[in-house]
Amino acid sequence: MRVLIVGSTALDSIKTPYAENPRLLGGSASHAALAASFFAPTQLVGIVGEDFPRRYLQLFRRHRIDLDGLQIAPGKTFHWAGQYEVNMNNRRTLKTELGVFERFLPVLPPAYQRTPFVLLGNIAPALQHHVLDQLQHPKFVLADTMDLWLNAALDDLLRLIKRVDALVVNDSEARQLTGLDNVVAATRQLHRLGPRFVIVKKGEHGALLSAPGGLFLCPAYPLARVVDPTGAGDSFAGGLLGWLASRRGNLETNLRQGMIYGSVVASFCCEGFGVVRTARLTRAAIDQRVAALRRLAKF
Amino acid sequence: MRVLIVGSTALDSIKTPYAENPRLLGGSASHAALAASFFAPTQLVGIVGEDFPRRYLQLFRRHRIDLDGLQIAPGKTFHWAGQYEVNMNNRRTLKTELGVFERFLPVLPPAYQRTPFVLLGNIAPALQHHVLDQLQHPKFVLADTMDLWLNAALDDLLRLIKRVDALVVNDSEARQLTGLDNVVAATRQLHRLGPRFVIVKKGEHGALLSAPGGLFLCPAYPLARVVDPTGAGDSFAGGLLGWLASRRGNLETNLRQGMIYGSVVASFCCEGFGVVRTARLTRAAIDQRVAALRRLAKF
Repeated sequence: MRVLIVGSTALDSIKTPYAENPRLLGGSASHAALAASFFAPTQLVGIVGEDFPRRYLQLFRRHRIDLDGLQIAPGKTFHWAGQYEVNMNNRRTLKTELGVFERFLPVLPPAYQRTPFVLLGNIAPALQHHVLDQLQHPKFVLADTMDLWLNAALDDLLRLIKRVDALVVNDSEARQLTGLDNVVAATRQLHRLGPRFVIVKKGEHGALLSAPGGLFLCPAYPLARVVDPTGAGDSFAGGLLGWLASRRGNLETNLRQGMIYGSVVASFCCEGFGVVRTARLTRAAIDQRVAALRRLAKF
Repeated sequence: MRVLIVGSTALDSIKTPYAENPRLLGGSASHAALAASFFAPTQLVGIVGEDFPRRYLQLFRRHRIDLDGLQIAPGKTFHWAGQYEVNMNNRRTLKTELGVFERFLPVLPPAYQRTPFVLLGNIAPALQHHVLDQLQHPKFVLADTMDLWLNAALDDLLRLIKRVDALVVNDSEARQLTGLDNVVAATRQLHRLGPRFVIVKKGEHGALLSAPGGLFLCPAYPLARVVDPTGAGDSFAGGLLGWLASRRGNLETNLRQGMIYGSVVASFCCEGFGVVRTARLTRAAIDQRVAALRRLAKF
């Protein structure tokens, strides 16, 4: 079945202690759509400016990503610049130039309105609501967010969380949303906000699913070197949803496997700047690393 | 087969944000020996003062722990007082009264010198060397340590690491020992110091084994409430070694399983102050939680 990905499409300038790369393809929707495309036909809703490099459009098309929902507007593409420390869990934003993204209103082409699997990638909760309003009987809606919206649009976000099947947050967002330091306890609290499924991302430590059938501990593929973690969370969510859309049968079983596949795509994402590694990824390489992860977790 | 546990035997006064408990049974050897005793006949080498409560000796005996190596010396038992913050990963020492521990020289009774599985629990590396010197053809020696010795006795510690089969450290110690921020990379570096097996403990995030056959990602049993994490690492190491001593067959398979059992005993340890929860644990409860952990990790 099809997957709809809504989020930001951006150009990222990224500095790490080891290298610097300007104007990479970035944004939550870009990473997530590429990740989903390995598993299911993927539709992308976003906005870029006239400066958006043609090669990035070609990259999306090579992954057979449907771009009918990608608006190309007069002006400049959203540009984010950030810098990572030696400990890649710490980053700071150097620059945020919204450009055309400031006027973004996600409008779904009619063909997208009945897409069954939907990722509301990290954008303003008001825009995520707007997408939900256009959907007709989605099977599964997963919402991502970021700390910015916890601070700037908490009410919108809390109303959104009530409306979705699954929420994905990272551990610090889970703590901030609940005021609880213990992630397991925080997860329980997050269910009270509405969603049946709660996923907490813990970076290199994997992720935790809380579902009606219980918890699932999703391991992360261990990397000896992280080149650039930007987009890893989006790749995780996109890969997870793509896998889900490609499967029949028990939802929780599929969710567990989807987290594994998402986690593996995210690990590849971290091995290159921007989408450099993801872009040349194959389904065979993903399957191979999933098998390796299975061996690493076996007891 | 038998297990020999060497380390500290202490009285711990522990404050958390929620409660305060004075003079609990503590010390690396106490926690580790109790954990090991669920799986294999266990010998304990340590020192206590004349003030050591009789009920703690009875507790060891109830677990059929051989106390021939426990010295009872004139003076006071090692007393440690510490305080945990809301985030239980942060603790500070309020008081350290060494008492008889200051004169501790671990002497192995003749019957202990051929014990095949040995845990050199967290004590000064010079004392760990002294134990190694008394052993005759041990099958498997696991050394634990703490940040104190990385700062105060690094040369002794590095010489010790060369002499053992396996080293267990926590993630911050792995970083400090290698200067590498990435734990996977740090693990590779630690092998160059000597040991065939390197285990990195990551608290609530589980543990990582690096072995000739590859890495193993050991999950931690998720707890919604941690009462007191003191001794969790010692319980992990003791449980692991006890399991190992109880098994035949492939060492790496046994090590993986041993880490799971150790991790589960450590999770029980965190559910009570000191050894309160561990003391009333049964092998059946451990097996049940291992089975639960297996379900939580299944994909």
